[in-house]
Amino acid sequence: MSNPETVLPEAARIAAELAPTYRDLHKHPELAFQEFRTAGLAARTLMDLGFEVTEGIGQTGVVGVLSNGDGPTVLLRADMDALPVEERTGLDYASTDRATDASGADVPVMHACGHDVHVTALLGAAELLVGCRDDWSGTLIALFQPAEEGGGGAQAMIDDALFEKVPRPDVVLGQHVAPLGAGLIGLHPGPAFAATDAFEITLHGRGGHGSRPELTVDPVVLAAATVMRLQTVVSREIAGTETAVLTVGTLHAGTKNNIIADHAILGVNVRSYDTVTRDRVIESMTRIVHAEAQASGSPREPEIVATESFPVLVNDPDASARTRTAFARVFGDEQVIDPGVVTGSEDVGMLATEAGVPLVYWLLGGAELEAFQAAYATGRLDALPSNHSPLFAPVIEPTLTVGVAALATAALEWLDERALPGV
Amino acid sequence: MSNPETVLPEAARIAAELAPTYRDLHKHPELAFQEFRTAGLAARTLMDLGFEVTEGIGQTGVVGVLSNGDGPTVLLRADMDALPVEERTGLDYASTDRATDASGADVPVMHACGHDVHVTALLGAAELLVGCRDDWSGTLIALFQPAEEGGGGAQAMIDDALFEKVPRPDVVLGQHVAPLGAGLIGLHPGPAFAATDAFEITLHGRGGHGSRPELTVDPVVLAAATVMRLQTVVSREIAGTETAVLTVGTLHAGTKNNIIADHAILGVNVRSYDTVTRDRVIESMTRIVHAEAQASGSPREPEIVATESFPVLVNDPDASARTRTAFARVFGDEQVIDPGVVTGSEDVGMLATEAGVPLVYWLLGGAELEAFQAAYATGRLDALPSNHSPLFAPVIEPTLTVGVAALATAALEWLDERALPGV
Amino acid sequence: MSNPETVLPEAARIAAELAPTYRDLHKHPELAFQEFRTAGLAARTLMDLGFEVTEGIGQTGVVGVLSNGDGPTVLLRADMDALPVEERTGLDYASTDRATDASGADVPVMHACGHDVHVTALLGAAELLVGCRDDWSGTLIALFQPAEEGGGGAQAMIDDALFEKVPRPDVVLGQHVAPLGAGLIGLHPGPAFAATDAFEITLHGRGGHGSRPELTVDPVVLAAATVMRLQTVVSREIAGTETAVLTVGTLHAGTKNNIIADHAILGVNVRSYDTVTRDRVIESMTRIVHAEAQASGSPREPEIVATESFPVLVNDPDASARTRTAFARVFGDEQVIDPGVVTGSEDVGMLATEAGVPLVYWLLGGAELEAFQAAYATGRLDALPSNHSPLFAPVIEPTLTVGVAALATAALEWLDERALPGV
Amino acid sequence: MSNPETVLPEAARIAAELAPTYRDLHKHPELAFQEFRTAGLAARTLMDLGFEVTEGIGQTGVVGVLSNGDGPTVLLRADMDALPVEERTGLDYASTDRATDASGADVPVMHACGHDVHVTALLGAAELLVGCRDDWSGTLIALFQPAEEGGGGAQAMIDDALFEKVPRPDVVLGQHVAPLGAGLIGLHPGPAFAATDAFEITLHGRGGHGSRPELTVDPVVLAAATVMRLQTVVSREIAGTETAVLTVGTLHAGTKNNIIADHAILGVNVRSYDTVTRDRVIESMTRIVHAEAQASGSPREPEIVATESFPVLVNDPDASARTRTAFARVFGDEQVIDPGVVTGSEDVGMLATEAGVPLVYWLLGGAELEAFQAAYATGRLDALPSNHSPLFAPVIEPTLTVGVAALATAALEWLDERALPGV
Repeated sequence: MSNPETVLPEAARIAAELAPTYRDLHKHPELAFQEFRTAGLAARTLMDLGFEVTEGIGQTGVVGVLSNGDGPTVLLRADMDALPVEERTGLDYASTDRATDASGADVPVMHACGHDVHVTALLGAAELLVGCRDDWSGTLIALFQPAEEGGGGAQAMIDDALFEKVPRPDVVLGQHVAPLGAGLIGLHPGPAFAATDAFEITLHGRGGHGSRPELTVDPVVLAAATVMRLQTVVSREIAGTETAVLTVGTLHAGTKNNIIADHAILGVNVRSYDTVTRDRVIESMTRIVHAEAQASGSPREPEIVATESFPVLVNDPDASARTRTAFARVFGDEQVIDPGVVTGSEDVGMLATEAGVPLVYWLLGGAELEAFQAAYATGRLDALPSNHSPLFAPVIEPTLTVGVAALATAALEWLDERALPGV
Repeated sequence: MSNPETVLPEAARIAAELAPTYRDLHKHPELAFQEFRTAGLAARTLMDLGFEVTEGIGQTGVVGVLSNGDGPTVLLRADMDALPVEERTGLDYASTDRATDASGADVPVMHACGHDVHVTALLGAAELLVGCRDDWSGTLIALFQPAEEGGGGAQAMIDDALFEKVPRPDVVLGQHVAPLGAGLIGLHPGPAFAATDAFEITLHGRGGHGSRPELTVDPVVLAAATVMRLQTVVSREIAGTETAVLTVGTLHAGTKNNIIADHAILGVNVRSYDTVTRDRVIESMTRIVHAEAQASGSPREPEIVATESFPVLVNDPDASARTRTAFARVFGDEQVIDPGVVTGSEDVGMLATEAGVPLVYWLLGGAELEAFQAAYATGRLDALPSNHSPLFAPVIEPTLTVGVAALATAALEWLDERALPGV
Repeated sequence: MSNPETVLPEAARIAAELAPTYRDLHKHPELAFQEFRTAGLAARTLMDLGFEVTEGIGQTGVVGVLSNGDGPTVLLRADMDALPVEERTGLDYASTDRATDASGADVPVMHACGHDVHVTALLGAAELLVGCRDDWSGTLIALFQPAEEGGGGAQAMIDDALFEKVPRPDVVLGQHVAPLGAGLIGLHPGPAFAATDAFEITLHGRGGHGSRPELTVDPVVLAAATVMRLQTVVSREIAGTETAVLTVGTLHAGTKNNIIADHAILGVNVRSYDTVTRDRVIESMTRIVHAEAQASGSPREPEIVATESFPVLVNDPDASARTRTAFARVFGDEQVIDPGVVTGSEDVGMLATEAGVPLVYWLLGGAELEAFQAAYATGRLDALPSNHSPLFAPVIEPTLTVGVAALATAALEWLDERALPGV
Repeated sequence: MSNPETVLPEAARIAAELAPTYRDLHKHPELAFQEFRTAGLAARTLMDLGFEVTEGIGQTGVVGVLSNGDGPTVLLRADMDALPVEERTGLDYASTDRATDASGADVPVMHACGHDVHVTALLGAAELLVGCRDDWSGTLIALFQPAEEGGGGAQAMIDDALFEKVPRPDVVLGQHVAPLGAGLIGLHPGPAFAATDAFEITLHGRGGHGSRPELTVDPVVLAAATVMRLQTVVSREIAGTETAVLTVGTLHAGTKNNIIADHAILGVNVRSYDTVTRDRVIESMTRIVHAEAQASGSPREPEIVATESFPVLVNDPDASARTRTAFARVFGDEQVIDPGVVTGSEDVGMLATEAGVPLVYWLLGGAELEAFQAAYATGRLDALPSNHSPLFAPVIEPTLTVGVAALATAALEWLDERALPGV
């Protein structure tokens, strides 16, 4: 069953079975470290399939191990968490759930980054690989990670003695759904996803009555001037040929229009591919934040707290080439593209680094194919809803089928001896 | 007892009694239309003093009427509501209370505008006037209003048939504590408090991943550019010799640093003294908000919703002069100053306008006297915490004594026949 | 002839004679300290009228003295300089002249502030007063000042020993044409024109190629951020009830679009009416300029050079009242209005201060009356071209007639004994 | 003499001879289309060397042709124009010259982009190639182009029938001095220099007096807001992985601090490598400029005039590989680096495109080697003066020697038959 001709039809069968599960996960998204329902579903399914399951690694992480004779150990990873976004897809399985976030605020929740696809596809790949266990030999690890979205879920699992609880793998494999045309797989060897650094910046003003700004230091104006100035980090201080992104994702100040608040809080996200660029961005951001506080006559220095730091994700070149060849056999050569580097970030690389083994991580197309081709042809990819958008909605098929098949194909490349000669 | 020599000592005695009440009110502030505890306290006290009390006018408003023979009808007004500000005064009676605001958010609450002083002083004045009821003749109305802070409390009471439920007065009197030196009274005849207009502005972006701004329309940048541009309304479009204040008191966008949100919300507060200026400010604000949305390539026009509109507060010149003379007799001429117009707003004028009678509304000094004098001498009044600041903390004495005495003095000016010849 | 009934017709006759002179002056404007042609015309005319004339006081200043028996000494003042503005009035006597300014640049020149009206009206008043010299007694001084527009012309004349060369007056009188309706006179006692402070600010960047901003510090961005931030001085740091204006009138940076320059130069103009406000504006401007340079990572501190400082112009209350009465007798009470304070500045007050005598300085209406009334009624005075606009074009009549008559009337108020009883 | 061992010593000898010429050219820079002295020097030297010389092609362009038997035709190109930059290198041969630019302004002039190196090196290469003419066979064209800096010099020569006046070449070769370490050569095959588009943008305000902004539309504020907003084109609208640079190189508004001007003029320079990015930048720039004018209430739409448009410079891959091999033989393999794409632009590609032949264009290191290595190691290349900086000063040696040798080596690669077998 594990020969190239059979993987796709089998994946299609399983994907059809799992479509209701996917819609259910989509309808009931959970924030970072709150993935109780999702983790429970994953654990139950793995147990039913015969995996030995450990729950609660890194709070809500779930790992299943299937020992199937001698041979390599392959780790397939999916992340589970959703985002505080209010869904506007109009889907009949759209989320209307809300949750309390880490700061205690009541927020809407949505699978706006497609982790529901990742969970479903990994469950499907586990089923497919169990179904053809006679064709391969080795150990299969299915890992469901919490809190990929800036929550440090991979680090939390590592800190919770992950590789003492489960075997150390020989390769780490995973995928992320993206606004590529559904059916396509995107694989870029070498540095592929950016490093992320996140900061919470508190700008201090002096509060007072909205009618008497002269007695205050207005933090809304201070925050606005800072945001405008921060645009110049990328536009003026980083070479056009280098890559850096600085996003002020959140800005919150004030409780009432006739009160001038005493502080504003900015949430900043920085992407980069090399240390020199990263350092320059952070150094410039810091300089600007302090200087703008001075321009306002702030009574206190601003506080800049680093809340997150992801390294660059590097796909091992040899393992990537090997995986790409396997994909080409199953999906056809023209379906496997090189999307170049992306500015997104991922902490899956930490699992491979901790294990000291190669990583291969690819993009799974989820966009309606014709819409993608039209957008690509006109250079207006902004016409497609991207990850984190309230409109992000992968088409279920062929996304799920290809997602199941891609994970299974990549795993079999390491686990199926018969595949090896073909490499 | 109502002669000038006795008002002050009697007020001091009552103020000392009421100081614990004041501290209790300060410690337990209530948001607009949620003043249940405060209203209950006011109603009970008025009943105990012999007033006929009506509760629940305009939701939480309370009015007591004391009929004491023939003569004029005088309305004394206090407002009761507090603000969503986190208190930082360090007082031992500081508030740590929180409440759910009208939008459903959990917010801190503080008497940052001194309405607790107003409530306490009116209860004290009621007691003082009851105590000397043999010396005057007429009808006394003590009115405790909800929701002065932009909530439309005066309008709500009027809409709830206020002047069918209680007699129409001959004059409306009231006071507001302010960062003048404690002991001072500030009274400005004519237009004295600004008109207020408040707006909630929703700016629309297009959401997406923080690493891919090119696929989004970033509402944080749009909001920041709008805030900076709105500064030019006052700096460039209003004559230096005219008065207008435009404050963006709140700015909220985004839930997470790595998500670009799809909208930002601004709370804007506008002050003005005449219609031409007011119209120009609103017209310019509207033009800028729409143009900035276009500059960002917003997918939808911004929405500008008027949430509040207070008229200019005008002190009747004759009634003001009469009140000023009475104050000078009790407090000394040099204690009654003309603070000029202030940019604050007040809806107390609506009560007088509805009744078709004169209004006299004055500022009650609440700042530590030496600090006030030092700040005044150096032109740096911004060294004093102003209304709506998390540090706003009137000194209890002589503020309460003067507050009680001022209300009583003004009322007696209309009610005490013996006072009349002296005018 | 100097009785109220005859002043106006006589002024009208003279104004008609002088209209060609006015058009000629308008067509040939001269920049500060370059008023050679204008000064020559003034000197020649005064000599022909019998004045004793001194030329070259303060470079191009001209003063004529007419001694006419015992009595007070009255100084009438006109300023002569034009502005580097390209005229766009479309008048048949519009200027197309150009000149080299103090920095060596070739610039267009225009009488965009109406000093041509002042010169013409003073020549006419001199003629009128000579014509009725039998009716008055005393000394008349006609002073033509250079460089009022920020050039320090009054100070230059004082420094050049003005009051050793001509008698010290008992009163200084003068007028400024303004976009009031023609026929109107505006006189405001007390502080009437703002203080001015001007600054040249040099912001330092680091130059380089337009394609490699990362190797530079871009002074255009620094200048833009500074300009936006400077708007907050008035919008946030000065009370709405105080008056301050901060204008960045000039901004120059760069020589070529593909070169990033190494500096930018801003010309800033500040208006205020009191020292506390003035100091706050300058302090805030200084703070912002330095902080914005830090935000850009400037290699050198910015330089802020004070280029000009005019005091507040204060009209002596008693002398103003006396002058107003005289105007009302000649023009009718309703033609003499109080325009309130204006944010314009004037150095004529320095002449009075130096002499230690009262000043009376009024606005002379120059706008087409119906246009003015329409603009006033709708609160859109910005529909009228204001001083310094390329479209500023006083209507010749009745502006010139009233200008001649007003100067003559005011002078006679001090010089004509017969007028005194009427005061 | 043309064997690899002899090119470098011969180039060194000639470079030493030409150093005074270089210093003289540096001291007397000439603006675009004003390169009369430089062109005269080039023409005379070529004639002395035996070239047939045509002057005045494209106004000031000079082309020399040396026919030396059968064989290929090679065109070596140097550009001659300098920039309106005030030199601050402190060199004893620094320029203090000034000139009148195309707009009539008097400006400083400096060889801030190193075209003086290009001219000198081409003269030296011509001498070297004449000296070894027995070793090669074919036709050598030495072309001295005017107005590379945005002036359209290449287009001007083409429009002036360049390839009717001189033979059509088989290859176009040239070089540009850059802040690489002196001794290094940088050659990038494929798209290597960015496309440039330049614009002059006129923003319209309404002029008036500096003290009455409310009657005006302030073009300085409009320009500042526009500059700040234009930063968001690169920071928010172009993917981090794409390359675009948008520089506002010039901003000019106003003549006097107390006059609000009626317009501001921006000079904008855009760099890009592909049409989709280019179109997006220009579309966004246009949208922002119009929207900001609306935000200010401009009386007229802004004008955006395209003043320049250079295509991407593409090095022919095969010809580049061939040239690189020749360089490696002469200079050593490690001296020839791939600098990647640069954001600078060049119109030399137009000559190759017009001729329909390959182009090879390389960077010539001009920075002091140790300073370069230190800057490179710390990632702070901004420590080195870059092209267009007032401090840009290539070290004369080994820059000139390598510049002469590189041009000669590349030419001989096509012209010297004996070299061919080694390819």
